[in-house]
Amino acid sequence: MSRKLNFYAGPSVLPVEVLEELQANIVDYQGNGFSLIEASHRGKVYDKVHNEAIALIKELMGISDDYSVIFLGGGATLQFSMVPMNFLVDGKVGDYTLTGTWAKKAYTDAEKIGKVHAVFDGKDKNYTTLPEASSVKPSANSAYLHLTSNETIGGLEWKHWPETGDVPLIADMSSDILSRPVPVDKFAMIYAGAQKNLGPAGATIAIIRNDLLERCGDHLTAYLNYKTHTKSNALYNTPPVFSIWGIKLVLEWIKKTGGAEAMAKRAEKKSALLYGTMAESNGFYRCPVDEKYRSTMNVVFRLPNEELEAKFLKESEEAGMLGLKGHRSVGGCRASIYNSLPEDAVSTLAQFMKEFQRKNG
Amino acid sequence: MSRKLNFYAGPSVLPVEVLEELQANIVDYQGNGFSLIEASHRGKVYDKVHNEAIALIKELMGISDDYSVIFLGGGATLQFSMVPMNFLVDGKVGDYTLTGTWAKKAYTDAEKIGKVHAVFDGKDKNYTTLPEASSVKPSANSAYLHLTSNETIGGLEWKHWPETGDVPLIADMSSDILSRPVPVDKFAMIYAGAQKNLGPAGATIAIIRNDLLERCGDHLTAYLNYKTHTKSNALYNTPPVFSIWGIKLVLEWIKKTGGAEAMAKRAEKKSALLYGTMAESNGFYRCPVDEKYRSTMNVVFRLPNEELEAKFLKESEEAGMLGLKGHRSVGGCRASIYNSLPEDAVSTLAQFMKEFQRKNG
Ligand SMILES: Cc1ncc(COP(=O)(O)O)c(C=O)c1O
Ligand SMILES: Cc1ncc(COP(=O)(O)O)c(C=O)c1O
Ligand SMILES: [Mg+2]
Ligand SMILES: [Mg+2]
Ligand SMILES: [Mg+2]
Ligand SMILES: [Mg+2]
Repeated sequence: MSRKLNFYAGPSVLPVEVLEELQANIVDYQGNGFSLIEASHRGKVYDKVHNEAIALIKELMGISDDYSVIFLGGGATLQFSMVPMNFLVDGKVGDYTLTGTWAKKAYTDAEKIGKVHAVFDGKDKNYTTLPEASSVKPSANSAYLHLTSNETIGGLEWKHWPETGDVPLIADMSSDILSRPVPVDKFAMIYAGAQKNLGPAGATIAIIRNDLLERCGDHLTAYLNYKTHTKSNALYNTPPVFSIWGIKLVLEWIKKTGGAEAMAKRAEKKSALLYGTMAESNGFYRCPVDEKYRSTMNVVFRLPNEELEAKFLKESEEAGMLGLKGHRSVGGCRASIYNSLPEDAVSTLAQFMKEFQRKNG
Repeated sequence: MSRKLNFYAGPSVLPVEVLEELQANIVDYQGNGFSLIEASHRGKVYDKVHNEAIALIKELMGISDDYSVIFLGGGATLQFSMVPMNFLVDGKVGDYTLTGTWAKKAYTDAEKIGKVHAVFDGKDKNYTTLPEASSVKPSANSAYLHLTSNETIGGLEWKHWPETGDVPLIADMSSDILSRPVPVDKFAMIYAGAQKNLGPAGATIAIIRNDLLERCGDHLTAYLNYKTHTKSNALYNTPPVFSIWGIKLVLEWIKKTGGAEAMAKRAEKKSALLYGTMAESNGFYRCPVDEKYRSTMNVVFRLPNEELEAKFLKESEEAGMLGLKGHRSVGGCRASIYNSLPEDAVSTLAQFMKEFQRKNG
C-alpha cells in the first residue's frame, strides 16, 4: 500500500504504527478471545486501557493531582455548551477572546447560557491576528476567560498565555494539544477533541482543576455536569471505547518519540519549511496571518487567484496530497500538519509548491 | 484464536465478520491510501459510509421520510438530557413509565428540566413487571410519553406499545433496537446507544419525526438542539467516525442475515432456550421477571443462594463464558444475548446451566 500524504484538518493522519497495532488487535485483543470493542467498560481489560490513557495524558502534559482528566462524547462542540452550563454561574460574566470561527462558536453558545463579554474581537482585522497576551484582562466580574489556543480554520496560534490571576483560564486546545509543552497550571480547564493530535474521532478530553468542580450545580442533568464524570473516573456511562484505545496508542507513540518537547521541535521545523517556502515565493504564496501568531499546526495560504488555487488543489491531489483545500468558510489552501504527519510529507509539499510556482508563476 | 462466548451487556459481542472487515480496512480503507479513521468527515469516502449507515437504518426499520435519522455522541445517557431540553416545553408535562434503572435515570434528568409525571412506577413490585400497554395513558397536558423498550438491567421488555394519540411517544431502545420489527410510525422519537445491538460504543442513533423538530427552541445551544443535527445530516461537527463505520457493517450483517424479522426469530429461540432451562430446573434457577415481559435480550436469573451464584460465575468464566454477572446494582446473573451472539453460545450456556445444577443442585 502506498500511503497518501494526509493534510486533512481533522479527522486526520494517525501514526501508521498505531493503525497497525489497532489492526493486529481488533479481532482478538491481546489474545483475550474478544475484541476490545466487545469488552465491557466495567471489565479489567478495558479498564487498563482507560486508565493508561488518562495516566499518559497526565504524564505527557505534566498535570498535577489538582486536576481531573476525563473523556466525553459529543466532540469539542459539546464543550461549547458544557463550559458555560457548568461555570457561567451567579450572574458572573463569561469572557471570550474572539479569534476566529471556533472561538466565536464557543461564544455564541455561551450567550445562550449567561452573560458574556468579548475581551478581544479580531473582526476588524478579519481574524488574522491575536491580541498581545499581556493585554488580555478578564472583566471585573468574570466567571472565566476562554481562549482557543489554535484557530484551526484561521491558522492562528497563541504563543503566550494571558495572566488571569484568580479568574479561571479555560482553553479549547482541540487542534494543538500536545504539539508543544503547555504550563497546565496556568489553566483552570483545557479541553480538546481527539481527532487532530490525539487519536480517532469520538472522544473529547477535558482537564479540569478540581476546585472548579464546586461550581457545577445540581440543577444540571447527569451527563452535562462535569462532576458526574470526574466522580466516576469518566465511567459514568459507556465511554467511546475505540477512540480512547486509539488515544492511548497515539499517546504511547508521542511518548516514545520524545513527548511534547519533541513534538514542538518537529512542529516548528515542519511549519517553518512551509512558511519559508511562502516567504521565498515573491508573493506567489501569501499567508494572511500575522507573522507573530502563525500556527504550527494549520498553515493557511493563498495563491494569486482562485483559478490557480483550484489548479493547485487538483494537481496536489493527483500527486497524492490530500486535504489541502481551505475550510469552505474561508477558501484558499490549508495544510494541517499535526504531530502524526511525517516530516517528509511536508518537504514533499514544499517541493511541490516550488515546482507549481515555477510552472505557473 | 478461540473466541470467548460473550454475554456482556454492552459494549458487547460483534459479528466476527464485522471485526474482520474492520481489520482488513483499518490501515488502508479500500485501497484509498488512508484509514477511514484518518479521513475528513467532509470528504467523499467518509460521506458514503455515513449515508449508507443512515439508509440502512431506514430500510431495516422501515422508517418513512417523515423522520430524520441522526448520530450523536455522549451515549444514550445524553439523550436523557436532550429529550426534555428539546421537547419538555411550554409548561407541559413529561410522562415517564418507571420500569427500572434506565427509565428512572431518564426521569431524574427530565425532572431537572421541567414538570414530569410517572404514569407507571414498578417500584412496588421491585421493577419485575410492566404495565399493560393499553392501560398506559398520557397526562392531560402531556409533552410526550417516554418508555424504555427493554430494561437492560431488570431484564424486562415491552411486548406491545401504548396508544398515545397525538401525544408523542418516545422510546429508549438502547438494548433491543433491531432485535424485532417495530411499528416506527407509532413513535415520535426512538433513540439507542450503539453498543449493544448496533456496533461499537461511541455513537447514539436518534430517529425523530420531523414535525417534532418545530419544538426545539432557539434558546438551546448548538449541540444540544436536535435541529442542529437534522439540518446538517448529522455532520454539524465531527461525528464518531469509527462507531458509525462499525454500525454500517453491523447493519449490513443484519440485512444479510434476514433483517428485523430474522433477528426476532433468533432472539425468541435463544431466550426460550434459557427461560426453558430455568422452567425445567425445579426452581434451581429463578427468573424474577413477570413471564409476560421477559426480555429476549437480557435474561436475568438467580440461583438458590449467593455462594452458588459466585461459583456459577467463576466456573462459567473458566468455561469461556464472559459477562454472566448481573449488574452490580441488583446482583445475580444475567445473560445478554444480543443479535450478534451466535445461537450455539446460548446452547452452550444452557448446557452448562444443566450441568451445574446436576453437580450442585
Ligand atoms: C479549535 C476547534 N475547536 C472545536 C472544534 C469542534 O470539534 P468537534 O468537531 O469535535 O465538535 C474544532 C474542530 O475542528 C476545532 O478545530
Ligand atoms: C436501556 C438503556 N438506556 C440507556 C443506557 C445508557 O447508555 P450509554 O452508556 O450509552 O449512555 C443503557 C446502557 O446500558 C441502557 O441499557
Ligand atoms: Mg478558525
Ligand atoms: Mg467505539
Ligand atoms: Mg434496568
Ligand atoms: Mg472514531
